[in-house]
Amino acid sequence: MGIVQEMIFFFLFAAFAVNLVSAQRSTYIVHMDKSFMPKVFASHQHWYSSILDSLNSTSPNFHQNPSMLLYSYENVLHGFSASLSKAELEAVKKSLGFVSAYSDKVATLDTTHSTEFLSLNPVTGLWPASEYGKDVIVGVIDTGVWPESLSYRDDGMTEIPSRWKGACDGGYDFNSSLCNKKLIGAKYFNKGVLAANPNNTKKMYSARDTEGHGTHTSSTVGGNYVEGASFFGYALGTARGVAPRARLAMYKVIFEEGRYASDVLAGMDQAIADGVDVISISMGFDLVPLYEDPIAIASFGAMEKGVTVSSSAGNAGTDLGELHNGIPWVLTVAAGSMDRWFAGILTLGNGLTITGWSMFPARAVVRESRLIYNKTISACNSTKLLSEVSSGTVICDSSKSFNIQMYYVSRSTLDAAIFISSDYAYDDSLFPYPGVVISPGEGAEVINYAVNGVNPTASMEFQRTLLGTKPAPIVAEYTSRGPSPSYPEILKPDIMAPGTLVLAAWRPNDAVSIIGPNIGLSNDFNLISGTSMACPHAAGIAALLKGAHPEWTPAAIRSALVTTANPLDNTGTPIRDAGFSYATATPVSMGAGQVNPNSALDPGLIYDATPQDYVSILCSMNFTQKQIQTITRSSYNCSKTSSDLNYPSFIALYPNKTKNALAKKFERIVTNVGDGAATYKVQVTAPKGSGVTVYPETLVFGQKYDKQSYSLKLKYKANQNKTVTFGSVIWVEVNGKHIVRSPIVVAPIIPVW
Amino acid sequence: MGIVQEMIFFFLFAAFAVNLVSAQRSTYIVHMDKSFMPKVFASHQHWYSSILDSLNSTSPNFHQNPSMLLYSYENVLHGFSASLSKAELEAVKKSLGFVSAYSDKVATLDTTHSTEFLSLNPVTGLWPASEYGKDVIVGVIDTGVWPESLSYRDDGMTEIPSRWKGACDGGYDFNSSLCNKKLIGAKYFNKGVLAANPNNTKKMYSARDTEGHGTHTSSTVGGNYVEGASFFGYALGTARGVAPRARLAMYKVIFEEGRYASDVLAGMDQAIADGVDVISISMGFDLVPLYEDPIAIASFGAMEKGVTVSSSAGNAGTDLGELHNGIPWVLTVAAGSMDRWFAGILTLGNGLTITGWSMFPARAVVRESRLIYNKTISACNSTKLLSEVSSGTVICDSSKSFNIQMYYVSRSTLDAAIFISSDYAYDDSLFPYPGVVISPGEGAEVINYAVNGVNPTASMEFQRTLLGTKPAPIVAEYTSRGPSPSYPEILKPDIMAPGTLVLAAWRPNDAVSIIGPNIGLSNDFNLISGTSMACPHAAGIAALLKGAHPEWTPAAIRSALVTTANPLDNTGTPIRDAGFSYATATPVSMGAGQVNPNSALDPGLIYDATPQDYVSILCSMNFTQKQIQTITRSSYNCSKTSSDLNYPSFIALYPNKTKNALAKKFERIVTNVGDGAATYKVQVTAPKGSGVTVYPETLVFGQKYDKQSYSLKLKYKANQNKTVTFGSVIWVEVNGKHIVRSPIVVAPIIPVW
Repeated sequence: MGIVQEMIFFFLFAAFAVNLVSAQRSTYIVHMDKSFMPKVFASHQHWYSSILDSLNSTSPNFHQNPSMLLYSYENVLHGFSASLSKAELEAVKKSLGFVSAYSDKVATLDTTHSTEFLSLNPVTGLWPASEYGKDVIVGVIDTGVWPESLSYRDDGMTEIPSRWKGACDGGYDFNSSLCNKKLIGAKYFNKGVLAANPNNTKKMYSARDTEGHGTHTSSTVGGNYVEGASFFGYALGTARGVAPRARLAMYKVIFEEGRYASDVLAGMDQAIADGVDVISISMGFDLVPLYEDPIAIASFGAMEKGVTVSSSAGNAGTDLGELHNGIPWVLTVAAGSMDRWFAGILTLGNGLTITGWSMFPARAVVRESRLIYNKTISACNSTKLLSEVSSGTVICDSSKSFNIQMYYVSRSTLDAAIFISSDYAYDDSLFPYPGVVISPGEGAEVINYAVNGVNPTASMEFQRTLLGTKPAPIVAEYTSRGPSPSYPEILKPDIMAPGTLVLAAWRPNDAVSIIGPNIGLSNDFNLISGTSMACPHAAGIAALLKGAHPEWTPAAIRSALVTTANPLDNTGTPIRDAGFSYATATPVSMGAGQVNPNSALDPGLIYDATPQDYVSILCSMNFTQKQIQTITRSSYNCSKTSSDLNYPSFIALYPNKTKNALAKKFERIVTNVGDGAATYKVQVTAPKGSGVTVYPETLVFGQKYDKQSYSLKLKYKANQNKTVTFGSVIWVEVNGKHIVRSPIVVAPIIPVW
Repeated sequence: MGIVQEMIFFFLFAAFAVNLVSAQRSTYIVHMDKSFMPKVFASHQHWYSSILDSLNSTSPNFHQNPSMLLYSYENVLHGFSASLSKAELEAVKKSLGFVSAYSDKVATLDTTHSTEFLSLNPVTGLWPASEYGKDVIVGVIDTGVWPESLSYRDDGMTEIPSRWKGACDGGYDFNSSLCNKKLIGAKYFNKGVLAANPNNTKKMYSARDTEGHGTHTSSTVGGNYVEGASFFGYALGTARGVAPRARLAMYKVIFEEGRYASDVLAGMDQAIADGVDVISISMGFDLVPLYEDPIAIASFGAMEKGVTVSSSAGNAGTDLGELHNGIPWVLTVAAGSMDRWFAGILTLGNGLTITGWSMFPARAVVRESRLIYNKTISACNSTKLLSEVSSGTVICDSSKSFNIQMYYVSRSTLDAAIFISSDYAYDDSLFPYPGVVISPGEGAEVINYAVNGVNPTASMEFQRTLLGTKPAPIVAEYTSRGPSPSYPEILKPDIMAPGTLVLAAWRPNDAVSIIGPNIGLSNDFNLISGTSMACPHAAGIAALLKGAHPEWTPAAIRSALVTTANPLDNTGTPIRDAGFSYATATPVSMGAGQVNPNSALDPGLIYDATPQDYVSILCSMNFTQKQIQTITRSSYNCSKTSSDLNYPSFIALYPNKTKNALAKKFERIVTNVGDGAATYKVQVTAPKGSGVTVYPETLVFGQKYDKQSYSLKLKYKANQNKTVTFGSVIWVEVNGKHIVRSPIVVAPIIPVW
């Protein structure tokens, strides 16, 4: 199941959480300035407890119901979460060292041929260079893990690196012995969800994945090799993660009963303490400023410790500016398709063969079935009408959408149906009745045969998987578009990775497909779509890069991914966007383009950034000191204020309706990470209607790690159609192989909260 | 699909064949005495052609439509088949050397854990002793073969024995390169079916299996190892034939358009000429005397050449005397079950777990579904009523049969159903909707919970295979019962072998299971039931015995199988009969018992028989000289007439309503095939109400191959209930391991044609 399921899942649990929130108290996350901690306290935890104790001692209901410390945080923030009444919160705010507090939030979850599609291979490039991510540790913040999945077997894994400080916590239906040299850690963080749900259940005390999402994302990052994996015969092959030798640690922060910022923060805090190298987090908090976004807050601490955080852009679709995780110090990943097609082969009695789309989840065989087309039945909008046909194959024409027609067809006794559709999305694996989706052009041929042929028949075979289909990738319709509402001055998303119909492990006791009206089918693997699936692909590649280049900062890793990303598809033409009628995709949909792991291994130049650079950005925003400290935790220095981060891409925004000429100047410093001296010359493609000047046009590096700076001036204007235009600046190595490309984007300003 | 499918298949094609038979001419099989062949003819074929030519020259319609020679036969009979009018037939009858003629007949087709269940193992016994049947050649007379099936790969096979004279004939959709060192021959014999069907199609010119039956039987005999084989998740494991290193040659004689004796004879004739060691023929001709039974005729020639013919008893069910292939010189095989159970696990909301029977062919998952029981709905006899329930799990009580209730359930939108049944047959793999079959005792518990429980729910998981279930084997309800109508004086069937829900290869483009009302599913393997499936098990064991004991005659091989067969099931008590309410099975249902391959390797004593012994039997029958010669082909010697074949079992028949005391005396000669001198003492268990005297009671053998004779006198009487009684005579080796057991049966005479 794809987006639809995810959306239902989200709304279900969002509603659930709201209903059960205690009327008296709610969970708040409280940021503290640790420099104010009195020396009498042995630890920050004692300090936070004493603050709550002082509240309780003055509270009228202290004895029966003391205010409870949920978590104290150390790495992602300085502070704690606690269940507080409004009055208690006000008292906390008066404590010495208080920085900020906000109520707990509900996260949105974003939902294997992919390694081949990304050109990862055992002979050359990033896989061998990184030893497949050996000894890189990836923390996954998600719904938990199904540890018995074959993807977590540790065949071929070496001993766990001694620097690992994490643990495998036993829990309900989760024995700590289930961890091994592949799944090296598993913890659950349930205090936020427990605080919001008075009726707690045993399964809330476990890292076991009762949904499937965390099993899917973590096995996508670093699942071991599993032969013969498939989704009911589709996508059959060897499943493996992007970094098949990386270590996985699961931090369960999402529960069926709810998803809370306090738990997310606790999980990320623990992951950083445990020593992970990369965090993959396929969820986001919508419509929150950076200082109230737990992922922004927690990932700032991660960044400071050199931990790359890969996050999902969200599944909000085509409206500009609805992306989440548009955080300057994380990697934000959009989703695209692969060069794979799931087919049913339709053969007509006249010999015509059409490769239609089908994901009917069983080895159905339709043989010489009577082909039926007439205007009444072919609306496919009545089970009663369809049942009068009794058997045979009905052509469903395109007056109704596929999902509506399939509803009626799946309740019929037909042999099969042929759906003619011009707008089928190709990103959902639900296909409950035998049939194929074909194009209107193909449909015309089939209808002609059905109407004019003698005893027309149709035969079909299912479970066909075609590889190498073109064009691919295509930007997914569902992927959330930039610019980032939390910081529009940086191009987000950064890159695109495979997110549509990704095969990875799943909990085996869930109905992941349906036959007929109501027969649910389970499977050890699931084929689902979302930026949640793209994010762990990027996290896995980041893990491989970390294995190959242990010295690279999170900014360096992101820079390598962005400047080597491919803006072209497998036909050699610009990547198209399924959300905009397959027009050329813009960087606000896909960032710099499709992630290109083998090129990222050796990017030539790097746009690096330090923690202070990010502070300078924060200082440029209209934030209070407390708001900034909420993110940075402790003291910070706003002496240098800059909205111009040393980022590997460029975006300029225009206000609505202005007709003035606009200009923006960017300064960049690039570091030579090639093997020795190198000279680069610039190639500029200006966005349509804009002018771009780069100075200097040649950069000369004497040796590895030399830095050079350049400036880029962009003259642009508003477009009354609010279109996004884009170009690129490419630094091309003279007599060398490196090509360092950055997109340049001109986009409208999107009104944000 | 099991018996039901086979029956439909049979009736369909039987009807088809009758409709299309030429009004003017029909096919006749003509037996000739070759000693009358004039010396001017270079071959018998020239002779037969000249006979037809002489007809044609005198026929009024010679020029437009000459009478056609279909086949000339050499090994299984002397003679030919031809399409003849009544007048032409009369002319042929006047030819010198004419023996007999009869019109072509329509055959009835009879339909892997089994090797483990038969205790075949790589460490000890028949598999290593025979090198898994290496270099033994098995000819399979059937519907053809699907050569691309993984069961016919030749991995691990050595070079084809040089004595092989057969070939792989190319044909429509069948390239001769498809044969290999496993499938060493493939031929098709279509002249009979072509003569009866004026509209011939391309696919009639091919050994390709367009049904599936021949692929199933031949892979059961000698299919190579295929890992991960299953029937939609059931019976998952490594499939292999009984003799996994034997060679297979397919003789396609059965076509979708019909099944004719002339083609069967031609196929068997060719198999013998090609040099097969064993023939497996899972079909039979019902209600024909030996001299008109093509299998009896052809297998006589096979027997003379030392070729063991294993045949199926038929699927006519429990009426006595309806068995086919009750031919004295073949092995006649009954069918039983295995120690395997296909399960759906039912878990109620109160924690009760019941292992029900299910073969729902997909990984359905039913979770905490509302459990519904009320008298109206639980009749499960109305899709309308069931649809009003909309979802949930309905308990179907046992007022209607499973098949009728399943019809309505499979058209509903229920989650699942629970079928309470006392008479479910457990031999059909069709199970089109999620559900389980449970016993009335279990049903009472489930109903009690459904009625009295609070919010009762049911969960189910499917695709479970349990091994080691007891009791097993059980005689299958469908297996045809003796005595043999064609020769009742010999106990038939001889033995029982696994025939129920046998997993073996199938053509991949056939619907072998169904989901819902009408979704057909295909698979590379099929799980079906019938004596057709038991026969190739016995053929495979015969091939292994031939490999271990190349010098043994067909009678010796059969004797070893019969005297070592096991009358007890895996609980150590007598095998039960599903056709008689699980009462103790009698030898007219299962012969001597379940085939026991490792014991058959070293049977101690053998009851052998020569071709002349079979002639002596024929001479004892009320046959004309021509009728006998129809079977024996050429001259025979009736100087010794005996109805008492040296058979490894004993049967005495009583006429209806007689009250007289009856007596029968049998003479037997046993050959010591143990390693040296041996002494045997007799142990007799007389059939109830009978007396048995054996003389002598001790047999002393000085060395290997010594022969000794004994007599057995049986005093018995008729039973007014027409019951079958039985006992045994067992020769037990003194200070040795051999136990040589023969059943003694007293049965009513069954009126035959």
